[in-house]
Amino acid sequence: MSRSLRLAVIPGDGIGPEVVVQGLKVLAAVLPSDVKLETREYDLGARRWHATGETLPDAELDSLKDHDAILLGAIGDPSVPSGVLERGLLLKLRFAFDHYVNLRPSKLFPNTATPLAGRPEIDFVVVREGTEGPYTGNGGSLRTGTPAEVATEVSLNTAYGVERVVRDAYERANARPRKKLTLVHKNNVLVYAGHLWKNIFDTVGREYPEVTTDYLHVDAATIFFVTQPERFDVIVTDNLFGDILTDLAAAITGGIGLAASGNINPGGAYPSMFEPVHGSAPDIAGTGKADPTATVLSVALLLRHLGYEAEAARVETAVAQDVTARDGAPRSTEQTGDALVSRVLAASVTN
Amino acid sequence: MSRSLRLAVIPGDGIGPEVVVQGLKVLAAVLPSDVKLETREYDLGARRWHATGETLPDAELDSLKDHDAILLGAIGDPSVPSGVLERGLLLKLRFAFDHYVNLRPSKLFPNTATPLAGRPEIDFVVVREGTEGPYTGNGGSLRTGTPAEVATEVSLNTAYGVERVVRDAYERANARPRKKLTLVHKNNVLVYAGHLWKNIFDTVGREYPEVTTDYLHVDAATIFFVTQPERFDVIVTDNLFGDILTDLAAAITGGIGLAASGNINPGGAYPSMFEPVHGSAPDIAGTGKADPTATVLSVALLLRHLGYEAEAARVETAVAQDVTARDGAPRSTEQTGDALVSRVLAASVTN
Ligand SMILES: CC(C)[C@H](C(=O)O)[C@@H](O)C(=O)O
Ligand SMILES: CC(C)[C@H](C(=O)O)[C@@H](O)C(=O)O
Repeated sequence: MSRSLRLAVIPGDGIGPEVVVQGLKVLAAVLPSDVKLETREYDLGARRWHATGETLPDAELDSLKDHDAILLGAIGDPSVPSGVLERGLLLKLRFAFDHYVNLRPSKLFPNTATPLAGRPEIDFVVVREGTEGPYTGNGGSLRTGTPAEVATEVSLNTAYGVERVVRDAYERANARPRKKLTLVHKNNVLVYAGHLWKNIFDTVGREYPEVTTDYLHVDAATIFFVTQPERFDVIVTDNLFGDILTDLAAAITGGIGLAASGNINPGGAYPSMFEPVHGSAPDIAGTGKADPTATVLSVALLLRHLGYEAEAARVETAVAQDVTARDGAPRSTEQTGDALVSRVLAASVTN
Repeated sequence: MSRSLRLAVIPGDGIGPEVVVQGLKVLAAVLPSDVKLETREYDLGARRWHATGETLPDAELDSLKDHDAILLGAIGDPSVPSGVLERGLLLKLRFAFDHYVNLRPSKLFPNTATPLAGRPEIDFVVVREGTEGPYTGNGGSLRTGTPAEVATEVSLNTAYGVERVVRDAYERANARPRKKLTLVHKNNVLVYAGHLWKNIFDTVGREYPEVTTDYLHVDAATIFFVTQPERFDVIVTDNLFGDILTDLAAAITGGIGLAASGNINPGGAYPSMFEPVHGSAPDIAGTGKADPTATVLSVALLLRHLGYEAEAARVETAVAQDVTARDGAPRSTEQTGDALVSRVLAASVTN
């Protein structure tokens, strides 16, 4: 009997299409031979918006739903007003498919350049809430464009939404050797949302007696990211704080060329979506310089999410070997993709 | 004719009182002899709250108003519920006295330890908005403590509030050799507040043709803080983003032991308030280990704000010399204060 993996692919803007090609190559190379990979590509992003004014039509949202997972390259282009594609496409997908766990692992590989002196050990995972907080699009502007303008942004937080992501983070912490979970918020200022998060964090924590817990204000957390990143194991945080912290995490672990992410709907009611943390990088689009590693690592998260644990590990090992062997000589997007495919294949032969 | 400087002093919690003593020593040493320094101390903070339940009574707020400036040590103690002193005292002061410019300079001195490899040149100033954004205490919680809880935080932004701080930042950028101003926000997600900020930033910018401008999303800004901090000259940003970025800025320039800040009411309708960025650090309170340098640098900002430019520069030179000469040997709070006083006095003799 043959299995299938029905994958929706959104190459998107800028370097998105280039890196996605390499991610798909690695995916094809690592999948067990009895798994039939069916991909369907969606033309969404800046080009589509310019051509039709559409960001994500309902019909396409429906059709995307009918997949096991989504692989996304990057969304965003300077020719489109800021916010249009982010809100109308990327965030719309995260919200429509209830991707409440935005999973972002950070690991400093040996030999990878880091801006930090002393090369601390870095190996943590940020569980960023993905469907609430200041990202709900709740807000508005009155007397727009006049000297009397007032603009609001509302951060929405529910016990329902916080509890499920906090629980997911405890599960992940509990499954790791160090079993440590840090909540990051700003509960000395954002007291309503902050206390909701902290209370739920403490309450759910009673169910995980083996997990050591810690709380940090977001400002203090950025200090520890650069002075003592080894103190972190799993971090759970709000949508906006998670956005900020994971870019910083990427920077200290070798740059966004390596940072992977999964927008996960743990229950599986909707397809989860996997994407590199880097954006569309229009300045290098088409030059063949983009590093596809973050996309390949996102493919590993995709494989793990779908139950292909051995295959996910094989991709991660291939990346770790390759990254460690890199000598800084320039390599094209395709060359890096090829190198990763070779390593994945070599590992599968010796397995 | 003799002049006077009427200074309100809020030593506060934890290491606050210890560092404030040193700040006052340096202030007394540097002030011209014809300036009469009158200080009045206010007993505000955790002790007061435990004793009386008060954070900042109206009578004291009124009396504080009657000063040229305020020097504050630190506010906050683990024995007080998170938010009580922060909102009821520190933020209450910033809001009541309309401290809309929260000024936070960052400079990496030669010889100071930084977590960044390669010791980049760092010399920038963050102009953090101080009276709006998510800090207004606007928000609430419904069905608190139940599984149906909803908690909101509202970020309030007005053209009035944004324009005045953006203008202040342009003035500062225009007065610096590099004349570069970077706006940091997240206008691809927080579109209402973000577009208000960006529009005003662009409009006011037309009045400052010599200032080079730049825009960064807050997540991307954290990356550049650690990979390319030399790109920044003046940064203007929202209250919460400024809070986060200035802790990171402190971390990369030698730690919060050196980070000064001024909560400034530029028009002078209310006294401005100067405080180290570090908190009360209850873990080291009373051990004599606290570094008073951030408080001393805050005194320099205070002097400059009150028109004592030569004296401000003398304090900053003393700090630069002292920090550069530090050999890492442990020194007590008082020893560092004494060293700074000596250097300030030596400089005044040679002047
Ligand atoms: C592009 C933007 C909307 C997005 C976000 O803020 O979530 C990005 O920064 C990310 O981290 O995935
Ligand atoms: C103590 C806290 C309320 C304060 C803030 O968030 O502004 C502090 O972090 C700061 O940066 O001065």
